[in-house]
Amino acid sequence: MPRVGVVLTAAGSGQRFGADLPKALVLLRGRPLVAHAASRLAASGVVDEIVVTAPAGFLEHVHAAVTSACDLPVRIVAGGVSRQASVAAGIATLTSAVEVILVHDAARPLASAALVRRLVAAVQSGIDAAIPSVPVVDTVKEIGPGDPPVAARTLERSQLRAVQTPQAFRAAVLRRAHEAGAARARDEVTAVSDDAGLVEALGLPVHLVDGEAAALKITTPHDLAIADILLSESDGAL
Amino acid sequence: MPRVGVVLTAAGSGQRFGADLPKALVLLRGRPLVAHAASRLAASGVVDEIVVTAPAGFLEHVHAAVTSACDLPVRIVAGGVSRQASVAAGIATLTSAVEVILVHDAARPLASAALVRRLVAAVQSGIDAAIPSVPVVDTVKEIGPGDPPVAARTLERSQLRAVQTPQAFRAAVLRRAHEAGAARARDEVTAVSDDAGLVEALGLPVHLVDGEAAALKITTPHDLAIADILLSESDGAL
Repeated sequence: MPRVGVVLTAAGSGQRFGADLPKALVLLRGRPLVAHAASRLAASGVVDEIVVTAPAGFLEHVHAAVTSACDLPVRIVAGGVSRQASVAAGIATLTSAVEVILVHDAARPLASAALVRRLVAAVQSGIDAAIPSVPVVDTVKEIGPGDPPVAARTLERSQLRAVQTPQAFRAAVLRRAHEAGAARARDEVTAVSDDAGLVEALGLPVHLVDGEAAALKITTPHDLAIADILLSESDGAL
Repeated sequence: MPRVGVVLTAAGSGQRFGADLPKALVLLRGRPLVAHAASRLAASGVVDEIVVTAPAGFLEHVHAAVTSACDLPVRIVAGGVSRQASVAAGIATLTSAVEVILVHDAARPLASAALVRRLVAAVQSGIDAAIPSVPVVDTVKEIGPGDPPVAARTLERSQLRAVQTPQAFRAAVLRRAHEAGAARARDEVTAVSDDAGLVEALGLPVHLVDGEAAALKITTPHDLAIADILLSESDGAL
């Protein structure tokens, strides 16, 4: 089977937790979020190596959390000036034998091992990019300029999907997408919020697969309470 | 003060709960969702009358649930062929003295009394439309045609807001927006997912105010568990 590598981003600051701790080290049932994520990646049985991006000053902490949670080969790299730069540094640190790359966010600690397997299988079946997505529940509007904000346009909800991580790519495609993205970033201020967006910018199709409630993103203490429920519902299953 | 009326939509089927019961009658801590919503509307102290839209066959049940939860004047009307038609029937049932209309969804049972007061105050300050909104956490993509779906475009997340209910309007504006919306619906297949969208279609500004986690929409049994946590966090407060 082609070698599978993961870039696990854990370099976010966690400002909205109001803690000094980076978000990836916030505890959920006594374990750091990044450890939950790493243990599910390992449990999938399809991952061969992991590179974790960590905030400056916390590389040792993140390394300890991840190696305690999985027995895969783990490397830690310092995060860059942006999420995109951090992921690029992670990609560059994976071994050259890697043919399938997953990019995952430690702020989605409960994305299941089954989801990881589905995504890897999709790319191994020959497609360039596969990402999890779920329907959008709320009406979504674009805001206009000005403060206070005013609704400029209501989007057609049935045509929208909220996307999650892990996102899975053929390694050569993701490397090319990040090179092109880095070149663009030198010329303009771009805000790319996920890796699939860089692949779309190359004009390549990004396939959507069914995401899961468990892959929710933890952004506030309230989300931690939700994650705790999800752990209860799954009865500790990976 | 101008008279304030609420159209509370409770006509949805609740298919995703897999129950025979309409979603508005699903129990959260032993009380129907629609009763939670009605009690918070009443607790705001700024609502004068409520019209509730209910599914055929459940008008009595919905009436009993709402009147047990609040002592405001309550009327029940049968839901129409679409959410938009149901709301229009509700608006037509409010008394003509109503000058401010809130449209609220029983599937958002925990939207707080404080939020209701903020929205009514916004409209009473002279603006035509005020709706609650929260930032979008996930990356959102538009899908292209075809199956399985492929990402067609990544939206600029910083320009998006997820909107909630209640939505508050100057009554004359909302009545006009629904008349225009009904005329359009005769000519084309439109999917309007909220009332503010009809006001936007008139070219009028819709102001966004800060929404709240408590105003989440209940669409699955999992969301009920989240609502239960929110009730614990608020310690039963309205």
